[in-house]
This record gives sequence, structure tokens and C-alpha cells, in this order.
Amino acid sequence: MILRFKNGTPESEVLAVEAEVAHAGGRSIRSDETRRPILAVVDKLPKEVEAKIMARDSVEDRVDPPGAWHQAHRSFRDTPTVVQIGDLRIGEGHPCVIMSGPCSVEGADAVMDNARRVKQAGAHMLRGGAFKPRSSPYAFQGFGVEGLGQLKRAGDAHGLPVISEIMDASLVEAFVEADIDCLQIGARNMQNFTLLKAVARANRPVLLKRGLAATVQEWLSAAEYLMEGGCPDVILCERGIRTFETATRNTLDLTVLPLLREWTHLPIVVDPSHAAGIASLIPVLCRASVAAGADGLTVEMHLNPAEARSDGPQALLPGELKKVVAESRVLSALF
Amino acid sequence: MILRFKNGTPESEVLAVEAEVAHAGGRSIRSDETRRPILAVVDKLPKEVEAKIMARDSVEDRVDPPGAWHQAHRSFRDTPTVVQIGDLRIGEGHPCVIMSGPCSVEGADAVMDNARRVKQAGAHMLRGGAFKPRSSPYAFQGFGVEGLGQLKRAGDAHGLPVISEIMDASLVEAFVEADIDCLQIGARNMQNFTLLKAVARANRPVLLKRGLAATVQEWLSAAEYLMEGGCPDVILCERGIRTFETATRNTLDLTVLPLLREWTHLPIVVDPSHAAGIASLIPVLCRASVAAGADGLTVEMHLNPAEARSDGPQALLPGELKKVVAESRVLSALF
Amino acid sequence: MILRFKNGTPESEVLAVEAEVAHAGGRSIRSDETRRPILAVVDKLPKEVEAKIMARDSVEDRVDPPGAWHQAHRSFRDTPTVVQIGDLRIGEGHPCVIMSGPCSVEGADAVMDNARRVKQAGAHMLRGGAFKPRSSPYAFQGFGVEGLGQLKRAGDAHGLPVISEIMDASLVEAFVEADIDCLQIGARNMQNFTLLKAVARANRPVLLKRGLAATVQEWLSAAEYLMEGGCPDVILCERGIRTFETATRNTLDLTVLPLLREWTHLPIVVDPSHAAGIASLIPVLCRASVAAGADGLTVEMHLNPAEARSDGPQALLPGELKKVVAESRVLSALF
Amino acid sequence: MILRFKNGTPESEVLAVEAEVAHAGGRSIRSDETRRPILAVVDKLPKEVEAKIMARDSVEDRVDPPGAWHQAHRSFRDTPTVVQIGDLRIGEGHPCVIMSGPCSVEGADAVMDNARRVKQAGAHMLRGGAFKPRSSPYAFQGFGVEGLGQLKRAGDAHGLPVISEIMDASLVEAFVEADIDCLQIGARNMQNFTLLKAVARANRPVLLKRGLAATVQEWLSAAEYLMEGGCPDVILCERGIRTFETATRNTLDLTVLPLLREWTHLPIVVDPSHAAGIASLIPVLCRASVAAGADGLTVEMHLNPAEARSDGPQALLPGELKKVVAESRVLSALF
Repeated sequence: MILRFKNGTPESEVLAVEAEVAHAGGRSIRSDETRRPILAVVDKLPKEVEAKIMARDSVEDRVDPPGAWHQAHRSFRDTPTVVQIGDLRIGEGHPCVIMSGPCSVEGADAVMDNARRVKQAGAHMLRGGAFKPRSSPYAFQGFGVEGLGQLKRAGDAHGLPVISEIMDASLVEAFVEADIDCLQIGARNMQNFTLLKAVARANRPVLLKRGLAATVQEWLSAAEYLMEGGCPDVILCERGIRTFETATRNTLDLTVLPLLREWTHLPIVVDPSHAAGIASLIPVLCRASVAAGADGLTVEMHLNPAEARSDGPQALLPGELKKVVAESRVLSALF
Repeated sequence: MILRFKNGTPESEVLAVEAEVAHAGGRSIRSDETRRPILAVVDKLPKEVEAKIMARDSVEDRVDPPGAWHQAHRSFRDTPTVVQIGDLRIGEGHPCVIMSGPCSVEGADAVMDNARRVKQAGAHMLRGGAFKPRSSPYAFQGFGVEGLGQLKRAGDAHGLPVISEIMDASLVEAFVEADIDCLQIGARNMQNFTLLKAVARANRPVLLKRGLAATVQEWLSAAEYLMEGGCPDVILCERGIRTFETATRNTLDLTVLPLLREWTHLPIVVDPSHAAGIASLIPVLCRASVAAGADGLTVEMHLNPAEARSDGPQALLPGELKKVVAESRVLSALF
Repeated sequence: MILRFKNGTPESEVLAVEAEVAHAGGRSIRSDETRRPILAVVDKLPKEVEAKIMARDSVEDRVDPPGAWHQAHRSFRDTPTVVQIGDLRIGEGHPCVIMSGPCSVEGADAVMDNARRVKQAGAHMLRGGAFKPRSSPYAFQGFGVEGLGQLKRAGDAHGLPVISEIMDASLVEAFVEADIDCLQIGARNMQNFTLLKAVARANRPVLLKRGLAATVQEWLSAAEYLMEGGCPDVILCERGIRTFETATRNTLDLTVLPLLREWTHLPIVVDPSHAAGIASLIPVLCRASVAAGADGLTVEMHLNPAEARSDGPQALLPGELKKVVAESRVLSALF
Repeated sequence: MILRFKNGTPESEVLAVEAEVAHAGGRSIRSDETRRPILAVVDKLPKEVEAKIMARDSVEDRVDPPGAWHQAHRSFRDTPTVVQIGDLRIGEGHPCVIMSGPCSVEGADAVMDNARRVKQAGAHMLRGGAFKPRSSPYAFQGFGVEGLGQLKRAGDAHGLPVISEIMDASLVEAFVEADIDCLQIGARNMQNFTLLKAVARANRPVLLKRGLAATVQEWLSAAEYLMEGGCPDVILCERGIRTFETATRNTLDLTVLPLLREWTHLPIVVDPSHAAGIASLIPVLCRASVAAGADGLTVEMHLNPAEARSDGPQALLPGELKKVVAESRVLSALF
């Protein structure tokens, strides 16, 4: 349960409640919300302890999240979480942030050119994979640590913060050393709890993709792992779920956007590239995502999709990206 | 295969091709496109016959639809199909048409009041079920033929064309007699081929909902049944598909909107009410749908959702509907 | 709720309860169980009426089904339903009944030969479609009423009861006239409530296939429509559900077999042909189904699968069918 | 492509083909099949190189797997893979191996008692989680390395090889040190490629669970990662997939058993506990699995399911396990 105290409740009162919970063997976590104290009690308390706490005048209301996730729940904060990456601010009330770049970093020159196009298109962050999760062990697996450096240098050269996927707990240090601004947890690793715990300690914003068959509850529980591990700056990323439909690569689930607004205070980004898997569908899905309130988009771009080393069929051309950025600016300002 | 002749091809040439197809035992269907002759050959022809036809100078190009649906395929017409219902025009390039009203017609007075609110909100058509497909045989099944009359009178009184679901082939006559402007085929009946064939003969526009687990290909094949049966005015309606996610009633599949634009010339309407099943999520899904290019929306409205005889939790209040109409007007004009 | 009276409760007592329910505006349905009176109350009663009934000494226990289906619930009978078709008995405790034959009836001679092979293989019923639900309006739709006659004559000639799919409420009379022993409702029509109501009045056993995306609850609600309409002899048929997996046509859900044993008294048949869609997988699925307690199997057979007019790839050869029958006999006797 | 040479092909000939592939920049992998040389060429070769190789007399046939997995493909070996764990042999043609034990290792005494019961029931291996993948960061996460030791000692005391789940690449050494006989990759980690690569180097048999939404192709590709990494002893484990059905925890997909027999030479184990999630359904699913040809079963058991620290509702009692073992022995001998 989440206990929301009245505005102006003295610290001593909150400490008393925390002590009571601890005394009963429960764990509690304090929100960093400054408007008023908020306390998440993540263990089930004995009924009489619970009743005693609820009887206190200082407790304004109590919310029981539908799952075990507490820190990720909307009522754990009064204001939405806004994640700061460089000068960018991602979260409710801020303009839609566009992350773009190639699926894979394909060399120093290539990614430098990518960064230039991304910047020219008006997008805000540079994305690119240095470690690629591939179904086949024989497929191109990315340039590794070297690719991270290439990506970062390209971002720096064009004033773009960078984001890249991390698949391995032992590589957290390398990502930090390469100064990757935002670490991405891929769909296949959403419930790789070892990785979540390790990445949480990196002290960097994390973009958490929804698993292919993950319910919203499981997704928020994965976010809770990150928050519990010490990372408050979690960005959720809807990237399509696996359904029976085979005409598109996945099914983009925009229904979760308004739902997440009610359930969590975390920012929400949409990845229409992996959802559709077909470049021509992506601009329309970008419109729909921004209209649905997305705080950001991540869209793959390539100069020559036919020759991309991975996921070419879903890459936009630079000119198409430019149009996406322009349209999202218009829509972002509307509501 | 679909044969698209050159602009200005003389009738005699098209007749010759039709004869050739027929001679080989194949069936062919002529498009009503006026810009140039288009012919769908729905049976597989012997290779040599096919080659001979393709060698003709008059054939500009040939398209092979990914499924058996031919008349529904984009290339069977040069211009998108625009369905006319009263003064309304539904289809690409026309403003988004909003259909609204209660889930079920709940009596003459109630639906008359509904119609007034729908009109006041600025919506364009009145919807309401007189025959309700209910999972339980013990649940309210609708007012039947009487309900159809009540709906139509309410629509007439407020200048709104009406749409209602038909579940039974034997009731086509009753729907025509009640002068229901548009017949709706529900998701559960999308592959009720008997019903499709009967409804096709009603000489009325038909709104065809996507089945809960229907692929886009199966959906377009169901549309083809209607067209083959004599109904050119088919409106497709995406209403959410069944997936593993249980936080929402269904998963609205907006990915299919840009896909359908490439695959078919038929207009596309979105029903976010049945997709979400939760009223508070619906306005945002309406925005997303219009931004994704929907030609129309169908949204449930009730004066007192808590007392609705069916699907109360997903009904908007009249004031909320008004806002949806206003927002869709803005978005509809943007792209 | 289902009220189960003590053994030996006098009729007057049950009538009194029925009257009480009716007086409160509720509907109740009497089980035909002979061991003791059982009453399904399908409407929600006022709390005080419910309490008063529950206080009666005669009420031994009360069961609340997880859905609206009551007559289909296990506790509505003490003994499992056994459906009699000719000399065959289908239901718990009886040997597994094998229904086989071609996907479509393909002419009088062909089906006569089919029947001979089915009989020779040791199978018990002849199946064959005279009306075929096809995704495409241009595909072979079956021989219709004529096919029904051919099927019946073939069954009669070889002492096999026959089963065939009915897709159209207006054809119930034709099926009865042709003396089809068991009417099949196909997966696409599981929630075609008009059809369910019409078929229920035919006074024949009905095999009800599970819809492609139907939950067990919806399936049992569809069975309830049949029972409520006057047909107690409902046979449930699991035929695979639609999932993300594309390596097989559908996913056979055998998990529901032990679940259905707990939830319903109705017999359960498995159709591995439509589930797998690949002939070589079917014999193993037959074994698994019988081991899971199936009361029957329906398996497609064709003399020359490559030339079948529909669903050839999933048809067994007569010799393979023979082996399936032999194996199912062995397994059926084990548990 | 997989090249299968004629029986008796001299080594020099195979070396020549390997050289040709390498010369063209391709990678090839030699099967350890002893009956004849088999070579998997995992990269696409230039057409002329391919043609030249295919023209050689020594190549008897060539198989193109439907995906990138080659070493896992049935035709990469002539005989099925039989995995040896202690004295146990798991694979086609050998009796069904039963792995059982608690969901989590719950202390030294508890697991010692578990082992005794497992042995008494006639099961063959002891399972138990020391590291538990839990959706919630606040839930019991297992006893860790300590639990591994407890499990192993319990297994040793009763002559049972042990199996336990590994979630973290950095723990491979600890599992080897604790002498865990078989390492389990859980469903959530099926595409944790970092983990797959690390576990492959442990020189131990690996049980690879199918991901919740993994296609058979993706599953076999994950097996290929293990084989490519140096682990030939991969056991596939079907444990239910995620579908729309919520009456059971997951949907056990037995359709894949006969399919996997055609596609791969690897042994296949079924886990009905996680599929059903309801203890009463499990014995019947065990029967079905063995009848479908499973080489093994993994079934959870607990002395007091109501007090289990995880997954209690799906645990069998020792007496129920005993019956499962007996039934599987009977069925295993049948086909």
C-alpha cells in the first residue's frame, strides 16, 4: 500500500509510521516527492498494525497498486517524473523527444554521418546499437565497445545525447566509461532481473522496453526493479507486442498509453519501428503515438535501408525522419 | 490477379480479355472505376492463357493481392471508395465521421434523448443496438425490431443517419423496412458467411467489424464476401483484437490503419470503446485514431453509464463526447 | 448460483424454492439429474431472498459458477452427460469415439468409398462437410443439401452415424430431413447466437467447436445457449486456438481437458486435424488427446490428400487412421 | 544448408569441401555424427560455389533448415541426441525421465526431505530453485549459492542428479563448483544471449525452457547459441506459452512435440506445472505429455503446497507424484 500524508505532515510523524512498519517486519520506501510525504509499504502488514496506521490523522489517503510495483505507481509522486538527459527533458508536459539513428552502429564514419542527418532532421537524441541481440548466433552481433565510442563521438560532434542497448551486466562499466547518456534495456531482457539490478546501479537514465509478451503489470514490475535498485529515471518504451497478426512485425499497443498515464508517473516513449517492421507505416504510427500523448519517439533511420546490417526494412530515410519531427512538433503542441 | 488496363483502352479490348478468361474456365469481375478499365481475375488461369493476356499492349500493370480478396484490393480502384450515407461522406480525404449513441437502445424516450445529445455534441450518426450479441443467454438481448424503429425515429428527429448491428440473416428485411441507414456486422459474426451474403443483398452500406482474432487478410476476405454479394459500400471497423494483455478489454490495433491504406480502397473506422473497455482511456484513443488517418470513429455514449443495460464502463458522457468531436475536427484537418 | 438439494428432498420443497425465486423476479432451471433435485438460479436475487433460501435445511450445498453458464456446470448434474448417437455413447467412462471422413463431401461415390474406409479402420462415425465455411468467396463452398444426402446414404450403407457442419439457421430443417445424426457448429460460428438458438431446437446432439480465440468461459456460455434452447446433448470439441505460433496451423489446447472435467459434465472431443494442420503430427496428437481423457476424436481422412478439395495437407490416409483407432483403443482402456 | 555426405566419404573429401566454403568466406561446422560426415554451412555462399559443391559425387543430400539453426536441426545428426546425466539417459528411445522437487529450495532440511520423497516416488532427478526469477523485486528471491549446496547434498544423499536454474552469467562458476548436474535456462532468459553463451562454456547439460512467447524457430535458435558456444547436450523444455486464455496460467503446447521430432535431434522435456498453474490438472497433462512422446517431465512437488514460498498452487503432493511416475512408466513403454 502507498500512504499519502497530508501536506505539511511533520517529519517526526512520518518517522513514527516508518518505525511502526519496521517493527512489524515490513519494508517501507519514502518517495522523493517534495510536496508532501509519501510512503510505500511493500510488505503485507498484520491487520491490526495496518488499522492503527490508517487511523492516524496524518494519513490523507491510501492507494493499493494492482501489483507489487509501488515506486512506479502514479500515487507514489504528485508530479510526473521528468527525466533529464543533457538539456532534454522527457516527461509529461514537455515536448515530444525524438531519438533516431541506425539500428546498428556500422562504423565511425557511418555513424558520424547518421548523427549529422539526425541533427539536420531536428531530432533530439542519437540511437544506435553496438551490441545487437540477434536470434541467430551467426548473424552480425554489433561492433561492441568500439561501437559505443563511435556512437558517443558522433553524438558529441553534433550535440546529441546518445542511447544504446546494454545486454550484459558485466558491461555496465563500459557503458558508463563510454559516457552513454541513456542505457536501453531491450524487449528480450525486460525480465532479465540480473541485468536490471546491475543497470540500476549505473546512475544513468534507463529506457526500458516492454517485453514481447509482457503485461503492463510485468512491465511496471520490471521498472520497479530498476527503481528499487537505485535508478529513479526510468523511461518506459512501448515497442509492439506479439499477437496472432502476421501482416505487421508486431502489434503496437497504444491503448497502454492512456492507461500508463493513470497507473504511473514515469515518462513513456513509443518505438513504432520495431512494432510495424515496415518503413512506410511508421510516419502514421508516429502521428498516432504523439497524439496519444507519447513523451518521446524512437525511430530508426538509415541512409540506405537496403544495405543496413540489420532491420533495414523498417528504417526511414533522413527526409522522412524530418517530416516525422515536424509533424510531431505540431501534434505535441496541440493537447 | 488484377489487370489494370491503360487509360482509354476500348471496351472491345476488355471484352476480349473477359472472354479469354471465361473460355479458360475462369471468373473475372469488372471494377466500377471510371478512369480506366480494371479487371479482377479470381481464378488461377493456365500459364499459357495468362501469358497471352499479359502480352497484350492494353494491360498496363498487373497486381497479385496477397490473399483471395480482389475487389477489396487498393488496385481494384484508382480512387478510394467513399461511402455516402445521407449527406455524409465516409472515406479518404473527407473529414472524420463520428458515430455515437448508447450501446443498446433502451426505449423510445431514452434513445430520443441520446440522439439529442449526440447531435448537440456535433457527432454525425446515431448508433444503438436493438439486437445484442451477449455471451450469456440470460443477459439482456435488446429490444429487437421495436428498438430499430425507436432508433430510426430518434435519428430522424435530429437529422442523424442511424447504424445498428444485424446478427441474423432472416432480419435483413426488417432492417431495410426500419430504414436503418447502415448495417453493422459485429466482430463475432465477421466470418458468419451466411449473414455476409444476406446483408450484401440489402443494398445498404455495411460497417464490418474486425473479428476478435481475425487477421487483416481474413477481414478483407470477409469484405470481399460483401462486395461479391453486391455491396460495394463496405466500411471496415477496427475494434481491438484479443491478446494476452488483460489490463484493457482488447488491444486496439492502429498499426493496421496505414497498412489498410496500402492494401485497400475501403474506408476505415475505429471503435475505441470496445477496444479499451474503460471510458477514461477513450478520448486519447480517439485522438490517436484520427491522427492515424481514421475516416470515422464509433464511440459509445450514455447519460448515466452506471445504469446502462450493457457496456456501461466504456460509455462516455455527453460532455466528453463533445470534446472528442472537437478534437477530431482539429486533427482531421491537419494531415 | 446452483442449489443442490439433499438426496430425498420432497418435490414440494423444491417447488417452494422455485416459487420463492420466481416471486423475487428470478429465473430458475431444474436439472434432469435423477439422484437428487438440483436448481440453477440464473438471476441475481435480492440478498435477503438468497439468505432465506440458503437457510433451508433441504439445501445441501450451493455452487457459484465462475460465469453465467449454469446448466453446463459440473454441479448441475451428479453424473456426467453421456450423449447417445445411434448405438454410440459419448461421455466420461465410455471408450473414445472416433469420427472420421473427408473434410468435404466430394460426391456420392467418393463419400461412399470414404465411409467404407472409415468403417474398415474401426472408426465409429462418418464426418464430412456439405457446407464449407471458406475465407474466400471464390473457394469451393461444398455440395450443399445434396451433399448431406450423399453423406447420410454412405453412413447408412456402412452402419455409421453421420455428423456435418451447419452454418445457417435456415437450414436446420434440411439437416433434420436428411437425418444427420449430429449437427456440428464450427469454430467461426461458436458465438453466432442466432444459429445456436436455431440448432438447439433441432432435437439432435450438437458438437460445438471452440472458437479460434474463445476462452473456456465463452465456450461454455455458448454451450449454455444450446442447453437453454432445449438441447441437452452438447459435445464440446477442442480444435486448437489461435496464438502467435505459426509453425503449426493452431495450438491444440489440451490443458483445457482436465479443466473441463472439473468445470462441466459435458463430453469432450478433440480435433487434432485442424489444430496441427499437418498430417504427420496428427497421430501423436491423437495419443496425447486420448491420454488426456478425450471422450472422442474427430480426424480427417482422405484417399488422396493431394487432390482433396479442401484441407488436404491435414488428412490422414486410411492406413494411418487405422493405427490411430487401434492406439486410441489401447490408451482409452488404461485410465 | 546442411550437407550430408555419403557413408564412407573419405576425410580428404570433406576437408576439401570445408576449404572451399572457407575460401568463399563462409563458416562451416562439422557434426559429431559418426555414421557419416555431415557439414553445416551457416553462411550464404555465392551461387557458383554452392553449385560446385552440390555437383560433387560425395554429397548425398542437402537440407535447408527453415531458420538459421543448423546444429540443432534433425539432419545434422543421423541419430537422436541422448543426454547423459549420471546414469540417466534422456532422449528418444529411452524411458521418460521424471525431474521433481520443490519450486524453491527452502532450506537444508526441507530439501533433504524433498529428495527423499522424490526418490520414494520413483522419480529420477531432483529439481529446486536457489535463484528465483520473480516479477516483484520484493518477493523471495531464493537462497542463492547456499541453496545450490543444499540441493546438491540432498541429491547426493538420495542418489539423484540435480537441476537448478541459472539466471546470471557471472554465476556459472558457482554452479559448476556446486556440481549442479544440469543447468536450467528459464523461460524469461531464453533469449538472454549473454547467459546462453556463458552457460554453454560450463561443460554441463543444459535444459532450455521455451520463452513465454517464443516461436519454435526462436527456441531452436536459442539452442543453436548453446551448441555454437560448445554445449552439445541441450534438452528442450516446453512449459506452456502465453495466450489469451486466462483460465489456466499458460497454454501447454503439445503440438510442438511431434513437430520437434521432425525438426530437431534434441531431447524434449515437458513442464506441465508452469503450464497449468493448477495442481489438479497436472497428472492428466503428464499423461498427455508422455503419450505425445516426451523424453522427460519436470513436475513440482511440495509436502505442504499451501506453505510453499513460491508457486504453491501448482505443486503436487508426494503421493500424487508417485502416481505420475507409475503412469508415465506404463505410457512410456507403449509406443
